[in-house]
Amino acid sequence: MDVIDVITAKRDGRELTPEQIDWVVGAYTRGVVADEQMAALAMAIVWRGMTRAEVSRWTEAMLASGDRLDFSGLARPTTDKHSTGGVGDKITLPLTPTVAACGAAVPQLSGRGLGHTGGTLDKLESIPGWRAELTPEEMRRQLRDVGAVVCAAGGGLAPADRKLYALRDVTGTVESIPLIAGSIMSKKLAEGTGALVLDVKVGSGAFMPTATAARELARTMVEIGADHGVRTIALLTAMDTPLGRQVGNALEVAEAVEVLSGGGPGDVVELTVTLAREMLTAAGLTTAKDPADALADGTAMDAWRRMITAQGGDPDAPLPAARERRTVLAAASGTLTRLDARAVGVAAWRLGAGRARKEDPVALGAGVTLHAKPGDPVRAGQPLFTLHADEPERFDRAAEVLADGYEIGGEYDPLPLVIERVG
Amino acid sequence: MDVIDVITAKRDGRELTPEQIDWVVGAYTRGVVADEQMAALAMAIVWRGMTRAEVSRWTEAMLASGDRLDFSGLARPTTDKHSTGGVGDKITLPLTPTVAACGAAVPQLSGRGLGHTGGTLDKLESIPGWRAELTPEEMRRQLRDVGAVVCAAGGGLAPADRKLYALRDVTGTVESIPLIAGSIMSKKLAEGTGALVLDVKVGSGAFMPTATAARELARTMVEIGADHGVRTIALLTAMDTPLGRQVGNALEVAEAVEVLSGGGPGDVVELTVTLAREMLTAAGLTTAKDPADALADGTAMDAWRRMITAQGGDPDAPLPAARERRTVLAAASGTLTRLDARAVGVAAWRLGAGRARKEDPVALGAGVTLHAKPGDPVRAGQPLFTLHADEPERFDRAAEVLADGYEIGGEYDPLPLVIERVG
Repeated sequence: MDVIDVITAKRDGRELTPEQIDWVVGAYTRGVVADEQMAALAMAIVWRGMTRAEVSRWTEAMLASGDRLDFSGLARPTTDKHSTGGVGDKITLPLTPTVAACGAAVPQLSGRGLGHTGGTLDKLESIPGWRAELTPEEMRRQLRDVGAVVCAAGGGLAPADRKLYALRDVTGTVESIPLIAGSIMSKKLAEGTGALVLDVKVGSGAFMPTATAARELARTMVEIGADHGVRTIALLTAMDTPLGRQVGNALEVAEAVEVLSGGGPGDVVELTVTLAREMLTAAGLTTAKDPADALADGTAMDAWRRMITAQGGDPDAPLPAARERRTVLAAASGTLTRLDARAVGVAAWRLGAGRARKEDPVALGAGVTLHAKPGDPVRAGQPLFTLHADEPERFDRAAEVLADGYEIGGEYDPLPLVIERVG
Repeated sequence: MDVIDVITAKRDGRELTPEQIDWVVGAYTRGVVADEQMAALAMAIVWRGMTRAEVSRWTEAMLASGDRLDFSGLARPTTDKHSTGGVGDKITLPLTPTVAACGAAVPQLSGRGLGHTGGTLDKLESIPGWRAELTPEEMRRQLRDVGAVVCAAGGGLAPADRKLYALRDVTGTVESIPLIAGSIMSKKLAEGTGALVLDVKVGSGAFMPTATAARELARTMVEIGADHGVRTIALLTAMDTPLGRQVGNALEVAEAVEVLSGGGPGDVVELTVTLAREMLTAAGLTTAKDPADALADGTAMDAWRRMITAQGGDPDAPLPAARERRTVLAAASGTLTRLDARAVGVAAWRLGAGRARKEDPVALGAGVTLHAKPGDPVRAGQPLFTLHADEPERFDRAAEVLADGYEIGGEYDPLPLVIERVG
């Protein structure tokens, strides 16, 4: 097989054959196809796209490049969720133990944050003692005993995707729906879940800014799941404003614990319950306990405590707090009509909650607390945000981006949190 | 400057700024921009194209990456020709001394062959003693004393182009008109010619198979030349059938010498005279001796002998001949209505006249002699081709491709050799 034939076929708009896809993904992983050749192919894919058959096979080839976990022998059905990432999106934290409390097992492999959206592993690492790295045997034991695990993906899963993602990141080829879908789905299929619910974010704080692109991504991922025998559905959900009232690693853990205690912000509770019901349905557990009941009766909190403890964390230890705080006051009176997710995400990042490069550490206590959400009435001079940072010199640049990130006016037209269901 | 911004700008269809172009070409040449990043950018250029301003600046940046020869102090004006390459295209050999005999100086930097088209340097190297490598000082002296030089481009000219061409060759990004035009013109402008005539080939044996693509390439190169103050015109010429009756290195030198002796095939003479007139006009030598007269009166041959001698060659030495010959007979009687340039080129290549990889040697005596050209009457059983090779086992595979490369029928509709003039 000649790599130039594969590149020129895609460049000229032809469909790649299964043999071409298997060969090029495998040869790239082994280093036989060079980075510059895969970069040219990736750009040709950005240009020409992929058919359903191509993207399914591409995902299959990435799966085949590494190990695939298998939890089929458990007593409970497995089900998982993946979010494309948003600001204040701590949903995995209350969701995973809630679904476990309702009878399914959740084998979630998560990632770290990069840029203005946070990462679930970074958030959980603010819990003293908690560790992200588990062996497949530890994962299986915890799924059997607790029913919930959130941990880092081992290096053996979809190595082709890891290598390709790093390449796309430096070659301007991230923005391709088939490549994004294949990347996400190869990791999720490798983790061995039996059912999958995708939370595809739409709006200013999301990777996919338009509903059209988000819908296309959702449809592509649902098709890949179906082609691999995993019951997959997707929800398009709003990411114009942050989820909840806390943005930042330890701040979000504290808010997740509020939700697990039966309280917490309405949007976080709504999305947790909606996604949990979808996950249970996708797993075939239609007569399971309702997730809202698991949050109300303390069984979700019990599962959370077991899940954190099983990974070495102390659920009762105080969470890290930032050394410095600053309050930002509302400039006018009226209704908060806009509170931009991206602006809040960038502010939290500037305060130290996120990283610019993969190697950077994150400040666990840093972030933004929101004292009002869109639709709330505010008065000039009332606290609008509390900024948390270890270094006070970070406040000005965070406050600057927030100043353009909200509007106070008259009418507010609330939008639904869950926009659409795909699959 | 961030390379990802440059890649995504082109990917998204935006025009690159002069600063972006200068930076990315320079940074790539220095190794600051990686091969995979330039490969992604090259594919985005294949996709989106370039404006006239972009391709001129791109060429300028490649020129600026290396040395630029300067022959402005010569007593004669400089003028040169570039051909996009065809089968049997030995025109440079009679053309260069003919133009010198008419009063201009021709500073031609040439290349070697790859694939089914031959290279001028390979052809000249069949002359015993002739050497392709000259220093810029030797070039200048020969231009002053002889008025004609054909030699290899030194490593210091347009190093960005050399690096980029090698990358495009392995990444499926050769087929981009702006990149092809920029590559050719950066080398031609670096050689310091004051005027330039482009012979853009069209047809089965050419790099550009359609007149539309060839016209676009011609127009782009003429614009680049104009933007750099070099009087440039282009001719679109037919490459459906080989030029002349000899295809192969030493075979073509012998045919060139026939033309310089006042004989030779009509198409080679016609194209030599036409291009020579254009080169003289472009150099402003409108009252110069006519090239047809220079061929007739022996002054072109005198210039040839001086040009070959100046580079160590012996114009009187016998040329190398292949060890073995085979004659292929016509299968039917009638008019030869088609003699495919690509088929003959591939046959000569299979006989050893060309190379598959840059490192390969060529067989100087190998090639194909054509005993009939399109429009000629043939009789079944008469010799149609003579194949020349050092190893007789090469004959069958060459004869095989030739068998599909000609047709004998009734009507033949001759097409003009010079299709169109651009600029």
